[in-house]
Amino acid sequence: MARWLVILAGGRGERFWPLSRVMHPKQFLTLVGDKSMLATTRERVAPLIDDQHTFVVTGVDYVEKVSRNLPGVPKSQILGEPRGLNTAPSIAWAAQLIARRDPEAVLLVLPSDHVIQKGERFLALADRALTLAEQHGGFYTFGIIPTHPETGYGYIERKGTAFGSRDVLEVARFVEKPPREVAEDMVQSGRYFWNSGMFVFPVNELLEAVREFLPVLYHGMVALAENPDRADVIFRELPAVSIDHGIMEKARAVYVLPADIGWDDVGTFAALARLLPRNGEQNAAHGYAIFVESENVTAISDGPLISFVGVKDLYVVATQDAVLILSPDKSQDVRKVVQALKEGGNHDHLL
Amino acid sequence: MARWLVILAGGRGERFWPLSRVMHPKQFLTLVGDKSMLATTRERVAPLIDDQHTFVVTGVDYVEKVSRNLPGVPKSQILGEPRGLNTAPSIAWAAQLIARRDPEAVLLVLPSDHVIQKGERFLALADRALTLAEQHGGFYTFGIIPTHPETGYGYIERKGTAFGSRDVLEVARFVEKPPREVAEDMVQSGRYFWNSGMFVFPVNELLEAVREFLPVLYHGMVALAENPDRADVIFRELPAVSIDHGIMEKARAVYVLPADIGWDDVGTFAALARLLPRNGEQNAAHGYAIFVESENVTAISDGPLISFVGVKDLYVVATQDAVLILSPDKSQDVRKVVQALKEGGNHDHLL
Repeated sequence: MARWLVILAGGRGERFWPLSRVMHPKQFLTLVGDKSMLATTRERVAPLIDDQHTFVVTGVDYVEKVSRNLPGVPKSQILGEPRGLNTAPSIAWAAQLIARRDPEAVLLVLPSDHVIQKGERFLALADRALTLAEQHGGFYTFGIIPTHPETGYGYIERKGTAFGSRDVLEVARFVEKPPREVAEDMVQSGRYFWNSGMFVFPVNELLEAVREFLPVLYHGMVALAENPDRADVIFRELPAVSIDHGIMEKARAVYVLPADIGWDDVGTFAALARLLPRNGEQNAAHGYAIFVESENVTAISDGPLISFVGVKDLYVVATQDAVLILSPDKSQDVRKVVQALKEGGNHDHLL
Repeated sequence: MARWLVILAGGRGERFWPLSRVMHPKQFLTLVGDKSMLATTRERVAPLIDDQHTFVVTGVDYVEKVSRNLPGVPKSQILGEPRGLNTAPSIAWAAQLIARRDPEAVLLVLPSDHVIQKGERFLALADRALTLAEQHGGFYTFGIIPTHPETGYGYIERKGTAFGSRDVLEVARFVEKPPREVAEDMVQSGRYFWNSGMFVFPVNELLEAVREFLPVLYHGMVALAENPDRADVIFRELPAVSIDHGIMEKARAVYVLPADIGWDDVGTFAALARLLPRNGEQNAAHGYAIFVESENVTAISDGPLISFVGVKDLYVVATQDAVLILSPDKSQDVRKVVQALKEGGNHDHLL
């Protein structure tokens, strides 16, 4: 009965264009600290699970890149999906392969592009969840205490405590990305957490739940484990569904551990801007910047020097061949530029 | 008695950083149209004066660049100054060399980094000034009708008409860059023109005036014509003085031709921004730009794609290795960034 890590690294990262590209999405960026988000994710839980027990699920085009980022992970454990189908297929694929080697395995599932500022605390919580899963079975989630009525996240509603322990709560239900008013009510009620997208469960319970709630996916995964060369064909038929919606909402014995771990999904430049240290004029730089009579400006560069003269309230992202100038309240709209590039057939600035 | 052209191309162009660099100043940029400002300046007067009768005075480091821009101009007529000493030494040097070959020459002196939108009209005016100088002698300037109380230009005060001709006026005096209130009074009076920095005169009258008003410079130029290899030493001792202040203010028989020629010295990004065509949201681009929900934005790129989302009232200039984000009312302050780079010893982004 070993612990296994499954890292989900399939994101396209369009909201970080032009820093991220189709061929270089967010999980490979060094947004915070000095390592890629993927490498940081792997390293963070190194004391709990080693490289030999790590699977990464990514897009088929990114397998090489993942391997260069995580040279210790066996190449056979980096799974390249022919197309992105949300989290349930990714997790089921890795689970199926792990179960064949270790039917008693307990899995820790982590997205590869989130920031966790309190790494030690997260490590303790992950250990706790793994131990609980080993002892009691069940599905464990990590609930982030919401700071604002974010409409881009899923929410988890809590019930009472579980196992007679104050740090584990039963889950009443999962709520997909809510409308604004609903989000406001939920945050105010104090009974909801943000769903951080991290999970712990015994592999056999997960596969059992997939068989029960997502039977087409289940059989696809069995077929895939038996015919790994047929991924192209099999993925074409599989349903795209999230683990939250496809499994967690329906499963019995689902728990949430309140997680005060400095979590941030860094889903937008605005989120990244919040994480950067600021000077007296509230300017922040990731890369080389010069500020002259400017305030509340965030500069993110993977190369070019960015200079500001007499401006305020801006986000600027610069690469050698593309510059993005953004109002702080529009950081969700970066996709509109990416869309315009796609429609214009401009692949040079996307790839 | 031939007509000769002297182009002044010694500018450093720091106000156009990062588009301009120490090694690639404004006169070599393609800011308007599809040719460098220097090449456009030469071409504009091609119907009046050919390459064989053209001198260019530039910095010693730019001689090669000028030659590539103007391949028809004999290399021996591209003069490289060891240090920039304002316009009087530049003009006197070229004049001295021209006078030795053609003592009866009449000179047209042009800065290399101004925009003239009404090229045909300017051509007719230049022809008129050259003809007047050939017939009557004297110093001719081109007066731009001021549109606002610019404090960065010199002004020319007019007197009555000359030669019984309505299109030529006598000059009362030259005014160096005035304080704001003085500029306002001058513009309001209707008796002042902006000094466009373009001149026409017989070479012998110019050299006579240099000898009379700037004797040190005169003897330096004689020495230089006799010892062209000693430019380094000679330039070290020469005074830095403008032709306006050193000669025109003191000379007799100075005239101004009112010049409605769409002139702009394009001295700042703000000036350049005024010259670019704008879309319905008042956005303008020189290079490749995408505007999403943005207005009154000017994008100037010599390569990178610049994208805007939800911003207004900005100037942005992008090169491969440097990006400048500027408030429209701060375009004079670009020098502060250049200054910061110099102080920080950052030569990579200056050269």
